[in-house]
Amino acid sequence: MGTDSSDAIRQITHISSVAFNEDESSVVIIDQTKLPNETAYLTLHTAEEMYDAIFHLRVRGAPAIGICAAYCMYCLARQIEAKDYAAFLDAFRQHKAHLNASRPTAVNLSWALNRMERTVLDHADKGLPEILDLLNAEAKNIREEDAAMCKAISENGLTLVKAGDGILTHCNAGPLATSRYGTALGPIFLGMERGIQFKVFADETRPLLQGARLTSYELSKAGVDVTLICDNMASIVMKNGWIQACFVGCDRIAANGDAANKIGTSGVAILAKHYGVPFYVMGPTSTFDLTCMTGEDIEIELRAPEEIREMHYAVPMALPEVKCYNPAFDVTDHSLITAIVTEKGICRPPYSDSIAALFN
Amino acid sequence: MGTDSSDAIRQITHISSVAFNEDESSVVIIDQTKLPNETAYLTLHTAEEMYDAIFHLRVRGAPAIGICAAYCMYCLARQIEAKDYAAFLDAFRQHKAHLNASRPTAVNLSWALNRMERTVLDHADKGLPEILDLLNAEAKNIREEDAAMCKAISENGLTLVKAGDGILTHCNAGPLATSRYGTALGPIFLGMERGIQFKVFADETRPLLQGARLTSYELSKAGVDVTLICDNMASIVMKNGWIQACFVGCDRIAANGDAANKIGTSGVAILAKHYGVPFYVMGPTSTFDLTCMTGEDIEIELRAPEEIREMHYAVPMALPEVKCYNPAFDVTDHSLITAIVTEKGICRPPYSDSIAALFN
Repeated sequence: MGTDSSDAIRQITHISSVAFNEDESSVVIIDQTKLPNETAYLTLHTAEEMYDAIFHLRVRGAPAIGICAAYCMYCLARQIEAKDYAAFLDAFRQHKAHLNASRPTAVNLSWALNRMERTVLDHADKGLPEILDLLNAEAKNIREEDAAMCKAISENGLTLVKAGDGILTHCNAGPLATSRYGTALGPIFLGMERGIQFKVFADETRPLLQGARLTSYELSKAGVDVTLICDNMASIVMKNGWIQACFVGCDRIAANGDAANKIGTSGVAILAKHYGVPFYVMGPTSTFDLTCMTGEDIEIELRAPEEIREMHYAVPMALPEVKCYNPAFDVTDHSLITAIVTEKGICRPPYSDSIAALFN
Repeated sequence: MGTDSSDAIRQITHISSVAFNEDESSVVIIDQTKLPNETAYLTLHTAEEMYDAIFHLRVRGAPAIGICAAYCMYCLARQIEAKDYAAFLDAFRQHKAHLNASRPTAVNLSWALNRMERTVLDHADKGLPEILDLLNAEAKNIREEDAAMCKAISENGLTLVKAGDGILTHCNAGPLATSRYGTALGPIFLGMERGIQFKVFADETRPLLQGARLTSYELSKAGVDVTLICDNMASIVMKNGWIQACFVGCDRIAANGDAANKIGTSGVAILAKHYGVPFYVMGPTSTFDLTCMTGEDIEIELRAPEEIREMHYAVPMALPEVKCYNPAFDVTDHSLITAIVTEKGICRPPYSDSIAALFN
């Protein structure tokens, strides 16, 4: 593989969807709603700007939301004018609750916020400047750990496919959605680095088109053989025999293996089962929420009807009075999942056992 | 039911998607690509305009394409300057072949064109003016027969559901796609006329959004309780228990019951089977093509990548270099179909037998 190609892969897999600005007083994100037509960076200063960036999916992808929330909490903590620990903690918790309400389904958001809060709680004996330093380090830890987890998930995922395989993916679980490589797309990039090529089919993923705008962008820029399809074409490409595995990310996994991910994922899993294609869910262990016994316990975010009625940047596609149902996620039943790929290893059914083993 | 409501239903079910102009020298269609934002009429004079209108889906829906083709053939026949029958037939056949190439999957196109040609062939002994009159009558017959068939399909379909049922439909098989009532939407409109209401879920149907632009428009205007969803939300609405039946149209049905319809239909059928929801295909007997033994024999139209990459009327949604696969139809295996509803009755498995019986 030539240097040009390696550079292209490296450029994409190391894309910085979340970063600090120079003096680390604010958070700089790539505005993912503008891709692929424009690579625009957005600097988040205020709590409101941070909330809006997550709510409007300017930063999205379960791991990236967690990283962004951690970075935001550090910047907000610096802005707190409290003189003592109690007042600081109180203001910190208000910011945390506010950010935590921006999106309900991905557990990584509250997971990262809880880690930041724990840092404050564990160092009540320290002075505020020192606590700020610890928060800065914790935010960077979360990011670095995610990069390492993505690499490990990619290694594990790569064992499930072979050169030339057709892989179908839904939504975006690539570098933009994480700190590096991605989860579901990780094995594909890692394979490319090693000269192992796949034929990837990317669902466009309505309503917000993360598959068209982000996944096909990332893969195409890295030189991966990617074909963009509409969500409703997943059946025909599987029937054509073009798909040997489905790779998807996840936003929250229950103790029994039920996995919430972008709306439409459960449909892909049902098609995969019908056509006999293995269906793999990929995510870091931070995506498991063992307080959810099954998918029934996972809150599904409902979003605005305009996302369906008014195509992204476009003229209306339906009458304004037409009612829409717009769930942002669905839950894929564990019975449809061939394996769950984490940084610690690959869980297989029965999931109650294999997931419990992961945490013991 | 009040008069206002009945008027609204009548206005929609009797919409004229294909008609002659006043002196019957050209064909007037509603430009379905402009709906719902604009109700624009388009007058088709030349063979090229006619071909383009069908190719670009300005007129679409298997039955409406057949009716439009018949109307077009009459107008084109009038333009033929031949002095004798042989020259007339030759020119007629050139026009026929040209129109027939506009879209390959819906059999109703060639079926209607063949009926028009048969009219010419069966009256070789008549003078050209008389043949033109017969062609005019045949085109109108095709339209009137379609209206009667849609009504009969609607009656038959209505026996399969009960008041309050949730019905999921894909693409558009309503009045705009036919001459009256529609096929898959027919039972819903007929029910409304009789005070029987359903809760309809309309798949938006990417890439050209016939479900958002046409189905939700027709149903909403007629006062039907309709909810628009993205194609990838069909799984969650079925899982929610909101769907008691799927109603879809069809473009070509093979002798074994395999049914080609708008891309994504086979996926809906697989989901329906998974969730135990009956899946009904509705169409006139003219949609059967007994020369196709199975769905394998049905040609699937592939369309331009721009339909996926560039959202309808919108800015690009993917990089221009991104490869797209854009089949306009897929084939639903007969094993996934609960019943095929025609104007002559309801076919149930085994389809080889029930379809053969329909034609004997």
